[in-house]
Amino acid sequence: METVAVFGVGLIGASFGLALRKAGFTGRIIGVSSPGAIQAGLAVGAISEEAAPEAAAQTADLIYLAQPVDRILKTLATLGPLVHPECLVTDAGSTKAAIASTAGKYLPPGAFLGGHPMAGKEQRGAEAADGSLFRNRPYVLTPCGELTAKMLEFRDWLHRIGSRVVVMPADEHDRVVAFTSHLPQLLSTAMSVTLAKQGNSRFLEVFGPGLLDMTRLAMSSPEVWESILSTNKKEIISALNHFKANLEALTARLEAGAEVSDLFSAGDRFAASLREVDY
Amino acid sequence: METVAVFGVGLIGASFGLALRKAGFTGRIIGVSSPGAIQAGLAVGAISEEAAPEAAAQTADLIYLAQPVDRILKTLATLGPLVHPECLVTDAGSTKAAIASTAGKYLPPGAFLGGHPMAGKEQRGAEAADGSLFRNRPYVLTPCGELTAKMLEFRDWLHRIGSRVVVMPADEHDRVVAFTSHLPQLLSTAMSVTLAKQGNSRFLEVFGPGLLDMTRLAMSSPEVWESILSTNKKEIISALNHFKANLEALTARLEAGAEVSDLFSAGDRFAASLREVDY
Repeated sequence: METVAVFGVGLIGASFGLALRKAGFTGRIIGVSSPGAIQAGLAVGAISEEAAPEAAAQTADLIYLAQPVDRILKTLATLGPLVHPECLVTDAGSTKAAIASTAGKYLPPGAFLGGHPMAGKEQRGAEAADGSLFRNRPYVLTPCGELTAKMLEFRDWLHRIGSRVVVMPADEHDRVVAFTSHLPQLLSTAMSVTLAKQGNSRFLEVFGPGLLDMTRLAMSSPEVWESILSTNKKEIISALNHFKANLEALTARLEAGAEVSDLFSAGDRFAASLREVDY
Repeated sequence: METVAVFGVGLIGASFGLALRKAGFTGRIIGVSSPGAIQAGLAVGAISEEAAPEAAAQTADLIYLAQPVDRILKTLATLGPLVHPECLVTDAGSTKAAIASTAGKYLPPGAFLGGHPMAGKEQRGAEAADGSLFRNRPYVLTPCGELTAKMLEFRDWLHRIGSRVVVMPADEHDRVVAFTSHLPQLLSTAMSVTLAKQGNSRFLEVFGPGLLDMTRLAMSSPEVWESILSTNKKEIISALNHFKANLEALTARLEAGAEVSDLFSAGDRFAASLREVDY
């Protein structure tokens, strides 16, 4: 792997470039993005140069698509005739089944490997890039079959940047993240909207650190989420329905004046189990 | 103010003792708590001695009730005959109307001032006490009428420990925290329960930092929450109903494939406004 093309030099794309450099990658890192993102990516050292999509795709051994899901789908549809046979195309999109299906349609077999780094932060853009963003974080890979030599080489780079690589089918990934990522996002947004709608200025005077935790995800970019939601609708609706049933059960207990400590204990146990694996 | 009695030497009670010391309080700080909590409180320097409830109440100028709400209600019912006329009784309970009403029944007029420090952390107990816990955090006071001289003296100590004092009626406090504290708590718990119930071991492999944020509150103590919920039931059910309506509206949009970016923007704006006041 000597030349990498990063499509979408935002927080994730630029952090991947910085992480590669930190892990010893000395080849070219070509950025394909808006002029502002290119400038920021060059400034932080995440990319070494810029290029138009066609030129970048024809040169790269690895094409890293770090755009919003809808943009990844559009880019995939144009890449087919451009990539050379040894090139691996991968992506960092938050849903995987729709992307895998589109890649299968436009790219030759074995040219594509779906990926999803479970990392992020409040700030957006290459200015906030961090070469340690993927360290100790899960990085899901969703191959269609066995990992080929070039896929194994990419996986080795993921190990070198400190990721915990998890391999699973694309549809299983989408079912899992509906619960572990998309549901939390929607609850944070719906809760923030609920508080905003009350228009009560006292809310801004009387809150603790817990409300900051619970509203952090609500600061995510709407542009990114629109296409995550549309490409994982079925699984997300299912996760929402499970949540609603549990919230109804909790509400019914409160209304009846019944104990809820078993629910608190179950929630506590799950939250603690997440922290045991988060190292 | 020369002698303080802290009833309940847990995270909040012990942090209050440490904060007083840090702010220059040189008087006695008597702990009234279980033997384990007394030992921990003495070890971290949050209290200077221990006493039985009666002896502590008869000696103190300030009685600081940092117990769970149900315990505060029970303590208030026994304090009446014990406290001397110059003593101020205050509390750190998370709901205020039920406590104010019980205090009014058992204590002479002007002897009680309700309070609620909007501070906390994951860890529990005096071992986790922190003299800076209240710094830059709201500390709500819910007086029945004008602040008397001894109440103003207590408020001055709150300023000295770095709190932002907010004054409002007890019932308004309870309405506000139903949205800013109790709703977030219940959503974190219900979400953790939802994920736990799926019994999917992949959830522990595939999650990002957002899930840690959204499950932090779920680690709160069930014993503390049981009585918060029962003493603020009406306001909490109302906040839950507002939330459910917003979640239904969001779900309906997703099902219809409609845009949700205006909701994301509204949630983002509210989350950002919280961060502007959180200094």
